[in-house]
Amino acid sequence: MGARTFAQMNCSLAQTLDVIGDRWTLLILRDAFFGVSHFGDFQKRLGIARNILSTRLEHLVVEGVLTKVGGRSRRTTYELTEKGSDLVPILLAIAHWGDKYRPNPKGPRLIITDRHSGKPIQRMTIRAVEGHELKPGDLGMRRGPGLE
Amino acid sequence: MGARTFAQMNCSLAQTLDVIGDRWTLLILRDAFFGVSHFGDFQKRLGIARNILSTRLEHLVVEGVLTKVGGRSRRTTYELTEKGSDLVPILLAIAHWGDKYRPNPKGPRLIITDRHSGKPIQRMTIRAVEGHELKPGDLGMRRGPGLE
Repeated sequence: MGARTFAQMNCSLAQTLDVIGDRWTLLILRDAFFGVSHFGDFQKRLGIARNILSTRLEHLVVEGVLTKVGGRSRRTTYELTEKGSDLVPILLAIAHWGDKYRPNPKGPRLIITDRHSGKPIQRMTIRAVEGHELKPGDLGMRRGPGLE
Repeated sequence: MGARTFAQMNCSLAQTLDVIGDRWTLLILRDAFFGVSHFGDFQKRLGIARNILSTRLEHLVVEGVLTKVGGRSRRTTYELTEKGSDLVPILLAIAHWGDKYRPNPKGPRLIITDRHSGKPIQRMTIRAVEGHELKPGDLGMRRGPGLE
């Protein structure tokens, strides 16, 4: 996607951006998470050109983030794989920041809940292994074997 | 950034992408989180053209994500504001997915720790208000007043 690939960068963040680092792609994944699965429905919701949508969807299928069900007909659906569902924490972290810093003046837009209790979920929070919340200033880092 | 703005979309995710939805921007924010602050250091680490870097940094200053300290000289530094630090959960969620699905064969690259204990932090996890982990299949949603 885009003019340059980040795939050669030895960085977990850059590696992920190589898969999802495109704004349309993140909106496509959002809609897939909402249950949208047909090409035409993505197109209508996003107002995206057919060729761009088609390229983005194929890219996500090749990456194993979406799976194509039902062959090449109009009934083909695109569904999140487990690898794709594992992107949901990223989508939620992005949405929570938008809730805080770009709120709608009327109040929350979409409220994501635990469907068993109906209660809103926690904000995505950085936590120590012991479970308590950490702020960015509490974080340190060290080089692992993958950076040798 | 880019040909089209998502600012008019009434969606917290699209609103955030209007600020950070560019791969260079996310790598700039990663480096700012690592403590990089000078124009020349961002440029060297990222191998990015001066004009692109300059545009991206200015955008982040205008959005209040970075603050410019020290005026217009070469000693100017760019530092994360609180609004910028609140993007760290997004960066971590992105990096954790890359650790899992695009690992370096030699092992973990950078290990983010609780600097007080030195122990690696938790993966970014979706949690119910009661604290237990939720999977994407456990999530529901309802429209808030901001979508009326």
